[in-house]
Amino acid sequence: MDKETYEILDTYMQACMAADTAHDKNHIYRVLYAALTIAEHEALVDYDCLITACLLHDIGRKEQFENPHVCHAKAGAKKAGTFLREHGFPEPFVSHVSDCIRTHRFRAGQIPESIEAKILFDADKLDVTGAIGIARTLAYKGQHATPLYFCGTDGNISEEDGDNTNSFFHEYNFKLEGMYDRFYTQAGKEMAAIRKKAAADFYHSMLTEVQDITKKGSCLLDKQIQTE
Amino acid sequence: MDKETYEILDTYMQACMAADTAHDKNHIYRVLYAALTIAEHEALVDYDCLITACLLHDIGRKEQFENPHVCHAKAGAKKAGTFLREHGFPEPFVSHVSDCIRTHRFRAGQIPESIEAKILFDADKLDVTGAIGIARTLAYKGQHATPLYFCGTDGNISEEDGDNTNSFFHEYNFKLEGMYDRFYTQAGKEMAAIRKKAAADFYHSMLTEVQDITKKGSCLLDKQIQTE
Repeated sequence: MDKETYEILDTYMQACMAADTAHDKNHIYRVLYAALTIAEHEALVDYDCLITACLLHDIGRKEQFENPHVCHAKAGAKKAGTFLREHGFPEPFVSHVSDCIRTHRFRAGQIPESIEAKILFDADKLDVTGAIGIARTLAYKGQHATPLYFCGTDGNISEEDGDNTNSFFHEYNFKLEGMYDRFYTQAGKEMAAIRKKAAADFYHSMLTEVQDITKKGSCLLDKQIQTE
Repeated sequence: MDKETYEILDTYMQACMAADTAHDKNHIYRVLYAALTIAEHEALVDYDCLITACLLHDIGRKEQFENPHVCHAKAGAKKAGTFLREHGFPEPFVSHVSDCIRTHRFRAGQIPESIEAKILFDADKLDVTGAIGIARTLAYKGQHATPLYFCGTDGNISEEDGDNTNSFFHEYNFKLEGMYDRFYTQAGKEMAAIRKKAAADFYHSMLTEVQDITKKGSCLLDKQIQTE
C-alpha cells in the first residue's frame, strides 16, 4: 500500500473515533500490528485488504454507542463500503474489506471466511486477552457505569444479581476466560496463550482481595451494629 | 450503633451515589470493612463516628462529577454536616464526622488529625492498592474516556504526550505505585503491602504486551507501506 492511501484511511479512521478508551486509535493500531504479526505465518495474504480492514474495523462504534440496537460491525462494513467506493477503490476490494469488517464481531455470529477476515477477527480478539484485555474491559465497564461485582446481604461476592449479569466478574468468566480457544489462526492462538496467565492472575487477585475484606469486615460490622 | 441509625445512614448514602463504577456502594462497603479491620489494631476508636464517616465519605462525588472544580471531600463534609444535624446527631459528633470526610482526600492536602480520620484515609487509600485499585482506576479512566497510554509516531509507548499526562500508565506511576508508603496506620500499611505485587505484576504485563506488539507490528507496517 502506498503511503498516501494509508494516510487517507488513517485520517478517516481517526475522524470516526468516539471518546472511548477501549476502542480508541491505540486499539486500532494494536489490532493492525497484531494482524501483521499473525499474517507473517499465513500464505497468500492480501495485505492491502488486511491493513484497510484493520484500520476501519471499528468505524461503526459511534453508531452503536448512540443506539445499542445497531451492530457496529454491520454499520462499520456499510460505512467502509461507502467511503472506499467514494475514493475509487475497485469493487472486489471494497466487498472483501466490508466482509472482513462485518464478520469481525465476536457476538454477532457472522463467520469470517477469507484469511484476511480470520486474521482481523483473531487480531481483534487478541486485544481482549491478557492484561490489555482486562484493562479495556474495565474501562468499558466504567464507561457504562457497570459494577465490578455484586455483593449479597450475606456478604457473598457474586458475578450476578438475579437476572442482572452485567458485571466485570461475569464478563471475565463468561467471555474473557474462554477466549483463548476461539482463534482461527495458529499464530493468534499462540500469541493469546502467552497472555493468559496475566489475566487469570489479575482476576484471582482481585476476587481474593474483595472476598477477604468483605468476609472480615462484614463480621466486624455485624458486631458493631448488634452490640450497641 | 443501633440498626435503625445504620440504615438511615446507609439509605442516605445510596441515594447520593452517582452512576460511577469506581465510587459505587461496593467501594463504600469495602472502605467501611477495611476501616473496621484497621480499627481492630487501634485503641480508643469511636466506632459510631468511624462507621458514619465511612458510609458518607463520598456523598459529594456527584457534585464534583457535575463540576470538576468542586472538591468532593469538602462538598461531602458539608452535606454530611447538614444531614446529620437535620437528623438530630449531637454537634461534637457532627463536627468530628465532617472533619473525617473533609480530610480523606489524597489530593486535597488536608491532614487527617483524629484516629478515625486517619483510619478512613487509610481505608479509602487501600481501595486504590492491589488489583482492586487497578480495576477502579481503569474504570475511572474509561468513564472519562482517558487513553491507557500514548504512542508516539516512532512507536514508543509513553505515559504522557507533551503536557498531557492524563493516561492510565501515568496514573499508575504517579499515584498508584507510590501509594504503599503513604498510610497513617501500621495495619493499613501492612494490608496494602500484601496487595502490592498484584498491581505491579498487572502493570508490567500490560506494558510488556503493548510494547511487544507495537514494536513488532510497527516494523512490519513500515515494510508494507514502504515496499509497495
